[in-house]
Amino acid sequence: MKLIASLLIAAALSWGQGAAACKPSSLNIPGAEYPCVHPDNRATFRVVAPDAHKVQVRVAGQGFDMVKGEEGAWTATTTPLVVGFHYYILVVDGARVADPSSRTFFGGGWDNSGIEIPEPAEVDYYLPKDVPRGQVSQRWYLSKVTAKWRRSYVYTPPGYESGKSRYPVLYLMHGWGEDETGWHIQGHMDVILDNLIAAKKAKPMIVVMDNLNAVKPGEDGRIFTSVGRTPPPRPAPAAGPAPATGAAAATRPAPPPRAGGLASFTGAAFTEMMLTDLIPMIERTYRVLPGRENRAMAGLSMGGMQTFLTTLSNLDKFAYIGGFSGSTGGRGGFDAKTSNNGVFADAAAFNKKVKLLFLGIGSMEGAGTKTFSGQLTAAGIHNVYFESPGTAHEWLTWRRCLHDFAPRLFR
Amino acid sequence: MKLIASLLIAAALSWGQGAAACKPSSLNIPGAEYPCVHPDNRATFRVVAPDAHKVQVRVAGQGFDMVKGEEGAWTATTTPLVVGFHYYILVVDGARVADPSSRTFFGGGWDNSGIEIPEPAEVDYYLPKDVPRGQVSQRWYLSKVTAKWRRSYVYTPPGYESGKSRYPVLYLMHGWGEDETGWHIQGHMDVILDNLIAAKKAKPMIVVMDNLNAVKPGEDGRIFTSVGRTPPPRPAPAAGPAPATGAAAATRPAPPPRAGGLASFTGAAFTEMMLTDLIPMIERTYRVLPGRENRAMAGLSMGGMQTFLTTLSNLDKFAYIGGFSGSTGGRGGFDAKTSNNGVFADAAAFNKKVKLLFLGIGSMEGAGTKTFSGQLTAAGIHNVYFESPGTAHEWLTWRRCLHDFAPRLFR
Repeated sequence: MKLIASLLIAAALSWGQGAAACKPSSLNIPGAEYPCVHPDNRATFRVVAPDAHKVQVRVAGQGFDMVKGEEGAWTATTTPLVVGFHYYILVVDGARVADPSSRTFFGGGWDNSGIEIPEPAEVDYYLPKDVPRGQVSQRWYLSKVTAKWRRSYVYTPPGYESGKSRYPVLYLMHGWGEDETGWHIQGHMDVILDNLIAAKKAKPMIVVMDNLNAVKPGEDGRIFTSVGRTPPPRPAPAAGPAPATGAAAATRPAPPPRAGGLASFTGAAFTEMMLTDLIPMIERTYRVLPGRENRAMAGLSMGGMQTFLTTLSNLDKFAYIGGFSGSTGGRGGFDAKTSNNGVFADAAAFNKKVKLLFLGIGSMEGAGTKTFSGQLTAAGIHNVYFESPGTAHEWLTWRRCLHDFAPRLFR
Repeated sequence: MKLIASLLIAAALSWGQGAAACKPSSLNIPGAEYPCVHPDNRATFRVVAPDAHKVQVRVAGQGFDMVKGEEGAWTATTTPLVVGFHYYILVVDGARVADPSSRTFFGGGWDNSGIEIPEPAEVDYYLPKDVPRGQVSQRWYLSKVTAKWRRSYVYTPPGYESGKSRYPVLYLMHGWGEDETGWHIQGHMDVILDNLIAAKKAKPMIVVMDNLNAVKPGEDGRIFTSVGRTPPPRPAPAAGPAPATGAAAATRPAPPPRAGGLASFTGAAFTEMMLTDLIPMIERTYRVLPGRENRAMAGLSMGGMQTFLTTLSNLDKFAYIGGFSGSTGGRGGFDAKTSNNGVFADAAAFNKKVKLLFLGIGSMEGAGTKTFSGQLTAAGIHNVYFESPGTAHEWLTWRRCLHDFAPRLFR
């Protein structure tokens, strides 16, 4: 009896501590206590759905059935989640919806929920500090190539407005189903750059974040439709970027195949738009340093693929290249002589031109990117392989990639 | 028999035309066909919820039961809706959620859905034209008063970056449960200003959009909590701003009473933060014209109330004042001698100081603002009354207010 009482007390204490220690996710709406994150990275979700029969939360590639409690509130506590930013959804009697307790984030082609499983407290490279802050500006421009208004976000470093200096430019792309808001909202790129610049670890630079969607008049639709929002299966490239697997893969959606499959995706309309409209607009609007050695391009996932497609066909315009969980790889197998129209065939010439070829990946995304990096190295192509330990195909991997990539630029 | 056939054909034609004529709302996610708006301003909503038992859409103060059709999709068509921007929600078996087919908008303290019932095609003052575009920038600053990082959005007019001119500044506030993103996302303030400036109808100016929430360390919580997201009843002021009624009132949430009721809301912490942190930050960061005659403040709903509280106590700092569907009115009855600490008591002195006192309202919001304007006029206080025809307590009213207000500034 005494043992049972002790156990009950221990359970009660444990419960009390557990509830007290579950901290609201930093991505919640103001005042919302749920979802919250436990010290062991389990998360507890809660939604009020008094008349529902089945409610589930789907996060980090797993589904967790929620249990109905008092006042029509359903709750579920997950198993420990991988650190980082995870999109998630609720399924209420079959309706796939965002959690009203979470701020929403444009990913997978719609405004869905997000939860942040924080890194240990000492990791603060993407948290705001009392250092000079750059700014992120919304910049509209009318594209000749698409015949539509387009929106960029442009980061200018601290001191830009009050000074007269010219700056190099990094063009930084989002992933499939995301948009030009991703890098400063989900990615905290402005804070990462502010902190690196304040610590003199990165050169002050302008960062341009545009939208991968570029469709010429009369061309066939968007490259990523969002209707239904269930992404098609991720096509597995024969070599190159890792097809993410298991829980890590499902953290966010994969790029969809176009007609003819992903192999037919050339990114040509975006490249044309970028060279015709975007870069000229940026260079006539901002104080920009001229020339390829002051121009970098990088992107995550599908944005990495676009980066490789754009830059490897235009090495006269770009000297720094980054793929974060995405590049091109050798479709149908890497061949240094023929892949990417033979751009890697003359390693010495490539290495002279390209100041940085960066391949980043989360360790939970598989070995494909490491393999690709090794193939490049074997072919004599200088490249930097960066692996984010313990992270998946999500924004923490890409924040870390940017944090490692940016200091290497414009040296 | 022939008659029935004719009726069937007519019905089919009518149906076909109706479906064809229902245009996707401009606020939908990319590729989403629903919600759509019919030529007579009815809207059709659609959500997939295969296992739900009851689904409802709530928009513009009304609830519409949805009907289950094929593939688990529920649809409903509303009665004709008032033109403008309406927040709306879906209720799926009791769960109040955003519609996954809509972009989300921060209002009512969370990211909820929005639908735009467009004005007639010839109204284009808030649509982008091929004119020089200003930009909206995210500006972070560390507040001494709240001891927290705060985010402003700052509109700079076309030519700001490339020129050397100094500009007057309008401080422009959102409403209850919204935030600093409202004016450029829901309100299209950048497009409105771009178009007015291009037409030489408004002076080029800087516009600062900040967040009404300002809580000093140790003070009690936010002024608008969002947990539960059911706004409390709107307190009816005895005079002054109109308590919106009926369908118009329910279009968006009302300000919540604080402890002691709304009458105890002084906006003091925001005013202190604005004078201590925000205005100095803006004036040391941007090329700003000095002095009260180059400084305006306006706001919508609760932001209008904050504007009146801040400016009427600091007429040495502001010469232009605007309340859009919100002001102070005379709590407990207007009295020119005593209301607002007697600021209206000496009409001649007030009129000499205040270059513009602007009171805007939607015609469907009631007569309170018109009454307040009349009381001021009777007391000899110069003021401009602007009524937006046929609109409710929503963003179309406030876009029109800004469009009428901005040309009157800094003359």
